Amino acid sequence: MSSVAPVPTVDPTDQRALVLEAKDQLSLRDFQLDEPLGPHDVRIAIHTVGICGSDVHYYTHGAIGPFVVREPMILGHEASGIVTETGSAVTTLKAGDRVCMEPGIPDPNGRATRLGLYNLDPAVRFWATPPIHGVLRPSVVHPEAFTFKLPDNVTFAAAAMVEPLAVGVHAVTKAKAAPGHIAVVIGAGPIGLVTVLAALAGGCAHVIVSDVDDTKLEIARKLGSVSTVNVSRENLAEVVKARTEGWGADVIYECAGSERAIADIFEPLCPGGVVVFVGIPLSNPAYNVSAAMLKEARVEHVFRYAHVFPRCVAMLASGAIDVSPLITRTYPFEKSVEAFQDAASAPKGQVKMQITMGLPGA
Amino acid sequence: MSSVAPVPTVDPTDQRALVLEAKDQLSLRDFQLDEPLGPHDVRIAIHTVGICGSDVHYYTHGAIGPFVVREPMILGHEASGIVTETGSAVTTLKAGDRVCMEPGIPDPNGRATRLGLYNLDPAVRFWATPPIHGVLRPSVVHPEAFTFKLPDNVTFAAAAMVEPLAVGVHAVTKAKAAPGHIAVVIGAGPIGLVTVLAALAGGCAHVIVSDVDDTKLEIARKLGSVSTVNVSRENLAEVVKARTEGWGADVIYECAGSERAIADIFEPLCPGGVVVFVGIPLSNPAYNVSAAMLKEARVEHVFRYAHVFPRCVAMLASGAIDVSPLITRTYPFEKSVEAFQDAASAPKGQVKMQITMGLPGA
Amino acid sequence: MSSVAPVPTVDPTDQRALVLEAKDQLSLRDFQLDEPLGPHDVRIAIHTVGICGSDVHYYTHGAIGPFVVREPMILGHEASGIVTETGSAVTTLKAGDRVCMEPGIPDPNGRATRLGLYNLDPAVRFWATPPIHGVLRPSVVHPEAFTFKLPDNVTFAAAAMVEPLAVGVHAVTKAKAAPGHIAVVIGAGPIGLVTVLAALAGGCAHVIVSDVDDTKLEIARKLGSVSTVNVSRENLAEVVKARTEGWGADVIYECAGSERAIADIFEPLCPGGVVVFVGIPLSNPAYNVSAAMLKEARVEHVFRYAHVFPRCVAMLASGAIDVSPLITRTYPFEKSVEAFQDAASAPKGQVKMQITMGLPGA
Amino acid sequence: MSSVAPVPTVDPTDQRALVLEAKDQLSLRDFQLDEPLGPHDVRIAIHTVGICGSDVHYYTHGAIGPFVVREPMILGHEASGIVTETGSAVTTLKAGDRVCMEPGIPDPNGRATRLGLYNLDPAVRFWATPPIHGVLRPSVVHPEAFTFKLPDNVTFAAAAMVEPLAVGVHAVTKAKAAPGHIAVVIGAGPIGLVTVLAALAGGCAHVIVSDVDDTKLEIARKLGSVSTVNVSRENLAEVVKARTEGWGADVIYECAGSERAIADIFEPLCPGGVVVFVGIPLSNPAYNVSAAMLKEARVEHVFRYAHVFPRCVAMLASGAIDVSPLITRTYPFEKSVEAFQDAASAPKGQVKMQITMGLPGA
Repeated sequence: MSSVAPVPTVDPTDQRALVLEAKDQLSLRDFQLDEPLGPHDVRIAIHTVGICGSDVHYYTHGAIGPFVVREPMILGHEASGIVTETGSAVTTLKAGDRVCMEPGIPDPNGRATRLGLYNLDPAVRFWATPPIHGVLRPSVVHPEAFTFKLPDNVTFAAAAMVEPLAVGVHAVTKAKAAPGHIAVVIGAGPIGLVTVLAALAGGCAHVIVSDVDDTKLEIARKLGSVSTVNVSRENLAEVVKARTEGWGADVIYECAGSERAIADIFEPLCPGGVVVFVGIPLSNPAYNVSAAMLKEARVEHVFRYAHVFPRCVAMLASGAIDVSPLITRTYPFEKSVEAFQDAASAPKGQVKMQITMGLPGA
Repeated sequence: MSSVAPVPTVDPTDQRALVLEAKDQLSLRDFQLDEPLGPHDVRIAIHTVGICGSDVHYYTHGAIGPFVVREPMILGHEASGIVTETGSAVTTLKAGDRVCMEPGIPDPNGRATRLGLYNLDPAVRFWATPPIHGVLRPSVVHPEAFTFKLPDNVTFAAAAMVEPLAVGVHAVTKAKAAPGHIAVVIGAGPIGLVTVLAALAGGCAHVIVSDVDDTKLEIARKLGSVSTVNVSRENLAEVVKARTEGWGADVIYECAGSERAIADIFEPLCPGGVVVFVGIPLSNPAYNVSAAMLKEARVEHVFRYAHVFPRCVAMLASGAIDVSPLITRTYPFEKSVEAFQDAASAPKGQVKMQITMGLPGA
Repeated sequence: MSSVAPVPTVDPTDQRALVLEAKDQLSLRDFQLDEPLGPHDVRIAIHTVGICGSDVHYYTHGAIGPFVVREPMILGHEASGIVTETGSAVTTLKAGDRVCMEPGIPDPNGRATRLGLYNLDPAVRFWATPPIHGVLRPSVVHPEAFTFKLPDNVTFAAAAMVEPLAVGVHAVTKAKAAPGHIAVVIGAGPIGLVTVLAALAGGCAHVIVSDVDDTKLEIARKLGSVSTVNVSRENLAEVVKARTEGWGADVIYECAGSERAIADIFEPLCPGGVVVFVGIPLSNPAYNVSAAMLKEARVEHVFRYAHVFPRCVAMLASGAIDVSPLITRTYPFEKSVEAFQDAASAPKGQVKMQITMGLPGA
Repeated sequence: MSSVAPVPTVDPTDQRALVLEAKDQLSLRDFQLDEPLGPHDVRIAIHTVGICGSDVHYYTHGAIGPFVVREPMILGHEASGIVTETGSAVTTLKAGDRVCMEPGIPDPNGRATRLGLYNLDPAVRFWATPPIHGVLRPSVVHPEAFTFKLPDNVTFAAAAMVEPLAVGVHAVTKAKAAPGHIAVVIGAGPIGLVTVLAALAGGCAHVIVSDVDDTKLEIARKLGSVSTVNVSRENLAEVVKARTEGWGADVIYECAGSERAIADIFEPLCPGGVVVFVGIPLSNPAYNVSAAMLKEARVEHVFRYAHVFPRCVAMLASGAIDVSPLITRTYPFEKSVEAFQDAASAPKGQVKMQITMGLPGA
């Protein structure tokens, strides 16, 4: 199922990187990084990097919550590439393997890590989260355990979508949705849309997506058995109840971080249903405990993802998930500052913008 | 394990009942109820009835949320008694059986009921919830399926505690606690205390109970491997972390309905831990979604209970749970108005007050 | 989403039925049944009935295990139709509604039923399981709670497939498969094939199907991301390990009832994986406890299904599942004896044969 | 809760060890082991070591399944001790800490380990499983992550019971038993008895223990709410059904590895119940798939344990579990050959024999 790409010749003198110098200051410039290759590591030539909302937020705000950019930091954490070199103990990868990478590296001795909850390890080192550098640069050294081989029919562009897709797949995994469920996804931004894809792939018969932006809802409707609700004009709970004979949706994914949506979030839910919080609200929303009790709701919260990259790759390979409708624009590395300026303007109709580093192959 | 009590002679002309005429107006007076015995029903002479906070709240406020007392209503829903008569299709009970009763009767055709979630059936008829009468009266007709035989070593007083205990046992069942867990119970009122008993019986190695009332905390400490935190003087999260090497508690039961406690509820929780909402806050608390995410908390909400009465009876019989420290005062039926007046004053050191109807036996 | 069909005029004098008189003796003859309409019942004109392996087995053997045909019995339990009359308490259905029906009616007072496990109720009355009559006849009276409305885009033929499909969907629900899993389905008969459809709809990225019959495997390969293993020539565990880098499949569905397959069933399984027993072996197979322990396998067993009909209908409506490749031949009611004779010969390439009763519409 | 013991002076020249030279040949002799202390390791002076059935089996058979003793091997894997030295990166332990140790060290890079299923890692190095040496010797070097501090009120003898107890606690954790359940434990050997303790601590209201040996059953009855069935005289399923009004037990733990018990294991089970395989049968038993289906049994299999040592220690400290009735004889290290000879004779009334190394303290 997977072949080996020609090992790219990475120019060792190429030290270009997209550097966030400080809030609002981006440069594409030389940045020296000396990364030794450990026995369990591989070196990867970067092929494609997606631009995430968090990258843009560091650019425009200089911080996300407690994470503050205090020194120049390379951006980018949604990446695919080609293995160029392997450490002495590496067994599953070889030079030429096309791969995508999970951007967070936990401490293997942490208690959460040992429980399998490595995304909750407080010592995790995550690309492009200060002070850890991202991968908008020619190459990176990364652990074999967090590097995943791609089948031939998964493009580098699709593979660079695995990272955001993983958030949706992790949310659906937490929901423990059963085949034939009806789901609601609140918010049709990039995370909402990957959650729609994951919910449909994970067995939902139908997904009702809500947002206030008709352009986004139009994209959502193209993803499969999806109907949409513009909550500036319609009441979500009423639409859901009309569709489910008054019973309610089995699962609700909150992907907007909307305090207003959270206030009424148990209304469209069925008795015994599940709510998954995926989007992060800016402040603490009011929470209707009594409404949750009347339905004995189960509420799950997700933080990034764990153990889902191989499953995402498998679904891209099998066709269970097609991320191509979400990749709306591609820039060459040389234009990466422009790419971020465009992204910061939140252009209508754009979902995921990507940057390609100039390697051959798709 | 269970013997048959002498079938009590219930005087058919005795129509006394404790009637809530309206807010603040209680009478012990004759109240005619004509209850036919259906094929799947049993008639039960009432032995003991516990006074619940909801009974008192109807007495002092005339309503709980949307449930308003509009016509005279008999109070009482925590009850034990003796079967005096059985319907034609009854197979598991006979006259003389000592029993306790589950006070809610769902519609068997409701969708939630068919799923096994009968406590969530919107059509449930629940004793002493307007307009359904309670059981502070000589006898009641009840379905066999919601009437549970008592082993000899379970007293009528303990059996009348099964209803509140069921709330705690249902909460612990929802938590899916594993043996050896560390739990926190917020609130040391009657529901907090039955949750402590249920958590310890359900495998918690240790329970940390928080409240602002030292008298209540003192009672909690007598229930087993329990330590306490008076949150007017100490910080709950700090105490929990000191005890768990910084990891946090596996399960947190919120039994106080306290908005203040809910604001910080994820702080003492371990990564991957569970919060169960048992107490009902008066208004919608602020909810720290980000904190819940960093730990990928699972949050469960309980509404009364389902399927737990037989398990509660079994734990009382085996000695796994001893409710006797919680039964702090007993009144004869003749003094039931006085009992409610006392209960309404929230006397220090009282946990559960009960009323006995005058039947023989314990 | 659903319209009302013209209410068919069911000739009240038409008493034809497909009657299994005794082993090997089938007649299409008049058979008087007097079915009163209870308040919670609907009367349904039958449109399409699928032929199940169990129907054929009663025909050719006169019994299945403890269930013996002692008196003439009408066959057929996979059915769709049109509501012609509703009981006084029916609220969700009306005359003209296109519907499919769940063939087992449990005792609402049974303990398993009350837990939501109604398929495990020993008192369940199941169509065409002696002594309960099936539905190869013009009409039937059935409870509203087990009758499900069809959206317009679900044909009567597809709706008559909901019953076998429900077995597969129930198995996948029990497996609690996560999106992106790799599954194995052992056996490519009708139940194996509906399990393939359910597994793919439920999130499996890829299904590996094993059988000894290449014709059946060829049908399986047309159902989606499916590869096949003819175990008369290849080793299943080796194929699975080659495909999963030695890790093993996440879920294995045993749909063949094959003692030989069961002997090695934990070999292709991944650590922590799940095996679901769907097919019923004729005698008790040898079971490799040690092998199951080394992987801490979870093993689930399914008996028919519960609560899945609405989810099956929703997936047919959304296109998540397409059963049409499995419906390989259709007979008119007049030729139903011939249909059973054909089915009993196990013709190559046939998966599901159906009988249509002559009502208009598709 | 925990104090520091005086750091024992371990004589560095003391190289005595209990060595299994080959089948049936045990010597207490000098055996040189050079164990460097890594940064994440601690050095522990051994205090108490329990004798496990597997130790005895290596002694009397020279092998367990694929694990063959090919070179002299030190026995012993149920151990407690005192920390004498800590590696440079150790943060949670210090010299003088009283501890118990988990005897299996997985490869942190293994896929199962990363999922949190470290007990399923094929590369795990487990004490006294060839070719890895056990701990019947003065000291051992062990990773901090698998070394657990003891509260003062947990004796070294009790702490050396944590390893076998962990098997029972892991089995109960897998069962996901709810408070008030009725359990069956098949087999009253050491593993059966720790499973009884774990089941009671984990919320079972009552445990029914079966065996053919009245002496063992008598010990079981002393452990709490336990009744017993001698299956040489009584039928287990009948006893269970009589006690549960025909419903069956919620959970059945098979701890005997008995093919005969496994043949009928679903008979005493309730609908929707759980069977946990804890004991390892010598050959593959016949398995009644149909019986499992009629109850939709869930079957779990355990292999050693994972993540339960801290929970075991917490339950010993809180008094939720008391292992002292199971510790029936103690030998000094000098008499360890005799101890094994005695253990190999399977003396009546002995459950767990332990060896003390001569350190001070209890």
